[in-house]
Amino acid sequence: MADRELSFPTAIGTSDPDQIRLLGQDLAADLMGKVGFGELAYWLVAGRRPTPGEVRVFETVLVALADHGFTPTAIAARLTYLSAPESLQGALAAGLLGGGSRFLGVTEDCGRFLADAIAGLTERPTDDAGWDEVARAVVGTARADRRLIPGLGHPVHKVGDPRTPVLIRIADEEGLRGPHLRLFEAIGRVHPAILGRTLPLNGAGVCGAALADLGLPVELLRGFALLARAAGLLGHLAEERRNPIGMDVYRTVDRNTRYLPPDGS
Amino acid sequence: MADRELSFPTAIGTSDPDQIRLLGQDLAADLMGKVGFGELAYWLVAGRRPTPGEVRVFETVLVALADHGFTPTAIAARLTYLSAPESLQGALAAGLLGGGSRFLGVTEDCGRFLADAIAGLTERPTDDAGWDEVARAVVGTARADRRLIPGLGHPVHKVGDPRTPVLIRIADEEGLRGPHLRLFEAIGRVHPAILGRTLPLNGAGVCGAALADLGLPVELLRGFALLARAAGLLGHLAEERRNPIGMDVYRTVDRNTRYLPPDGS
Amino acid sequence: MADRELSFPTAIGTSDPDQIRLLGQDLAADLMGKVGFGELAYWLVAGRRPTPGEVRVFETVLVALADHGFTPTAIAARLTYLSAPESLQGALAAGLLGGGSRFLGVTEDCGRFLADAIAGLTERPTDDAGWDEVARAVVGTARADRRLIPGLGHPVHKVGDPRTPVLIRIADEEGLRGPHLRLFEAIGRVHPAILGRTLPLNGAGVCGAALADLGLPVELLRGFALLARAAGLLGHLAEERRNPIGMDVYRTVDRNTRYLPPDGS
Amino acid sequence: MADRELSFPTAIGTSDPDQIRLLGQDLAADLMGKVGFGELAYWLVAGRRPTPGEVRVFETVLVALADHGFTPTAIAARLTYLSAPESLQGALAAGLLGGGSRFLGVTEDCGRFLADAIAGLTERPTDDAGWDEVARAVVGTARADRRLIPGLGHPVHKVGDPRTPVLIRIADEEGLRGPHLRLFEAIGRVHPAILGRTLPLNGAGVCGAALADLGLPVELLRGFALLARAAGLLGHLAEERRNPIGMDVYRTVDRNTRYLPPDGS
Repeated sequence: MADRELSFPTAIGTSDPDQIRLLGQDLAADLMGKVGFGELAYWLVAGRRPTPGEVRVFETVLVALADHGFTPTAIAARLTYLSAPESLQGALAAGLLGGGSRFLGVTEDCGRFLADAIAGLTERPTDDAGWDEVARAVVGTARADRRLIPGLGHPVHKVGDPRTPVLIRIADEEGLRGPHLRLFEAIGRVHPAILGRTLPLNGAGVCGAALADLGLPVELLRGFALLARAAGLLGHLAEERRNPIGMDVYRTVDRNTRYLPPDGS
Repeated sequence: MADRELSFPTAIGTSDPDQIRLLGQDLAADLMGKVGFGELAYWLVAGRRPTPGEVRVFETVLVALADHGFTPTAIAARLTYLSAPESLQGALAAGLLGGGSRFLGVTEDCGRFLADAIAGLTERPTDDAGWDEVARAVVGTARADRRLIPGLGHPVHKVGDPRTPVLIRIADEEGLRGPHLRLFEAIGRVHPAILGRTLPLNGAGVCGAALADLGLPVELLRGFALLARAAGLLGHLAEERRNPIGMDVYRTVDRNTRYLPPDGS
Repeated sequence: MADRELSFPTAIGTSDPDQIRLLGQDLAADLMGKVGFGELAYWLVAGRRPTPGEVRVFETVLVALADHGFTPTAIAARLTYLSAPESLQGALAAGLLGGGSRFLGVTEDCGRFLADAIAGLTERPTDDAGWDEVARAVVGTARADRRLIPGLGHPVHKVGDPRTPVLIRIADEEGLRGPHLRLFEAIGRVHPAILGRTLPLNGAGVCGAALADLGLPVELLRGFALLARAAGLLGHLAEERRNPIGMDVYRTVDRNTRYLPPDGS
Repeated sequence: MADRELSFPTAIGTSDPDQIRLLGQDLAADLMGKVGFGELAYWLVAGRRPTPGEVRVFETVLVALADHGFTPTAIAARLTYLSAPESLQGALAAGLLGGGSRFLGVTEDCGRFLADAIAGLTERPTDDAGWDEVARAVVGTARADRRLIPGLGHPVHKVGDPRTPVLIRIADEEGLRGPHLRLFEAIGRVHPAILGRTLPLNGAGVCGAALADLGLPVELLRGFALLARAAGLLGHLAEERRNPIGMDVYRTVDRNTRYLPPDGS
């Protein structure tokens, strides 16, 4: 077959013998040593170079999401490394594959939830009272539909998640406390009266709100949680080399296995 | 079974209702907004906080390795996203799984090659002439064993890889041009006389040398290439949403499929 | 912590120095050489040993789904093998990760769609006329909701998918042409009058219907498509060793890359 | 670019509107209902249709390798399913990614070890005494090189692995007890006198020997272990739906986490 029109367009990377171009820039001359890694990650996804303030908020989010101890994803990565130590990429991939709806999905779900609510507004509030009104409608609808509000509640930090006020403060300092964060804060203020109990605004949720305020596409917010977690997982795998726990996890399960007939009797 | 001694130690993350601790620090009070994402990744793997100079060299490496256009790994990630768009983590993992010996392994292989050579020295050279002597022995041995020297040669940048001098300069500026980089540079100077042809020091190799000079464990250098590539792959997946090429790649292959009997006749 | 009650129950596998037990059977004495691989896979998921007729239908489904040429998932697996040939498990995993909603999901989606429709019936029809009536309601509702009916239509086999009548015949021969297949066939008969065009019942869909009639859990039907595809992907990887195409795919894309500014101009 | 010569050859699958061809056969007319799933998997990898005896030995191997209880890979798959239940393919892939050198690699390593030894023979023995002589040389060399012999020894089945004699008997019944199995058996007979202790021939090893005797490529033997394990992992994931243990594994680790400073003090 003659494929005269074969063409695979990209804005990301191209190269020729003398030059490597990335995002339309000269990688060696214009990017190396001149942009930070977080800045580049933002640029790659957003297709535009972020401002210093945007970089600061973005990196704060990545730091907040990088690790949370022995999560199921960290344990899965360590067990995979135990089984196949020659393939670091496999252990990292196994850990990231747990980055789905339940353990890493809150960031994306919260960003999307807020974005949907904001998209439905005919005009945006200009003060907290206005946002509280929007939040009351949003929380009321969720309650009527028996839907959980993403980003509300935390199994450990039942009173307050320490990440939340810090990220809001930093976004505010950089002039990036936009509609998603404002609506999220308003939900934090109004939900007790509607739901009958007080839940914290959790860290994963506030990160989603902050990323959405940075103009990053809500369909890809999970991707930033995955990037952050990639660093955390590398930390776990480095520690697994120095001070392994994978074999102990395996043995703990293996030694306490009990046969259960398929009919459960 | 009573497991009185069950204990899973970690230096990474722990939390209680009031505080999230990461690397022994208070995540919200001491890390968020105060350490960069690259800095945190370094800290997680090395187990110690890097200096600002180390962070600069480290982030330069991550920027250098983040993307190189439509590599096989980027294409694999895009095809996986085409097939399963609901699972961003799966597409990212598929891309990272190509981070093995052939396409992302040079960084680690080069760092390890240099580290092994340096480990065998009874004393380290103090000037370029001394490193040249070491390099001549190393290149000569590799040639005698018919082994390739990792980091030497590039299919596109046949004369010189533009990333190499930039990274060496930045490491030098930060006082981090250590034995691995010096030996790598010496290999670049001496190999033409021994091998009979002049090959460039490639970007993946110089990144491995620089990471080894940062004191990062050579067994995990591939991990940093994977972290960098995670950002590049997110860029590809974001672009695949805006301007997809996966279906065109698939159709190009599918339309040009030709049946070949198993015996190859 | 004392975990006196640690207990991890399973009906699958346990072992002691003399015996390996699988599904409550003695692996060496009762299973090896006595049950086929497809039979064991069925048993593992269903928790009960299948009848010979069930095995025949089940293996027919696995054969039907094992491969379909250079699909995106097969190409992704081959590109990953090109990049990391030392990790066969990584290449296989990359291929399976494309087993999501668009390319392998139809089997599960169709089984679930039919199961949901059947679950809503107060009584089940006893003849084709009765099933046609149910099908008209189901197709009409889907049309009103502007939802596609999973399993209906195929990009290549526009008139008829050759797999469909064969699987229905085999299920019928084994007395396993149950409500899911009957409703699926009825949809095939009634949809032209409602939708205004005639679409084939596709092979992935009929496999979902057949698996559901075998009593396998609809939430796991995708799993059987993945198991079948694992065999197909191994075939692709074996062929990639003998007669590689991965590098040609990569080069075709790489040589036809065109830089596109991020703003798309 | 005009790619007049674009051509992607394959012996596996092609299709046109009327027919799906797989391995040069008509899928619907010649394969569905006529070849078993194990038979097809063998055919896909070997590129030739196996005999019934070969299928019997092959499926016995797959049954033997399908599962071994709560292995690290099974636990990793369950933890991934816990974290991302919407992506069954991700959980399965995570489990398979542990199919590397330590936990699933013995099958391939043993087949390769035996094949290498046999490739070095000028002529093949015709009786057990002859194979014993070869085995003594092989075991002696491995001992001198301080290399372990793959397939020898087992952490649980210290006296004898119950799978080993069964597989040898079945291969013998089918006339497929070839040089790899004979050498493996000879290693079992002669090693105690050389190594000074008696180790069992383990099940993973005997499977590798049997697969090599079937003429399957030793570089891909790990692939069959992965295919077998895919069925076992689906069984675990089905059970995780019915009777989950993932959350308990996570909690057991999480509750017993102890902070360890990076310097290990």
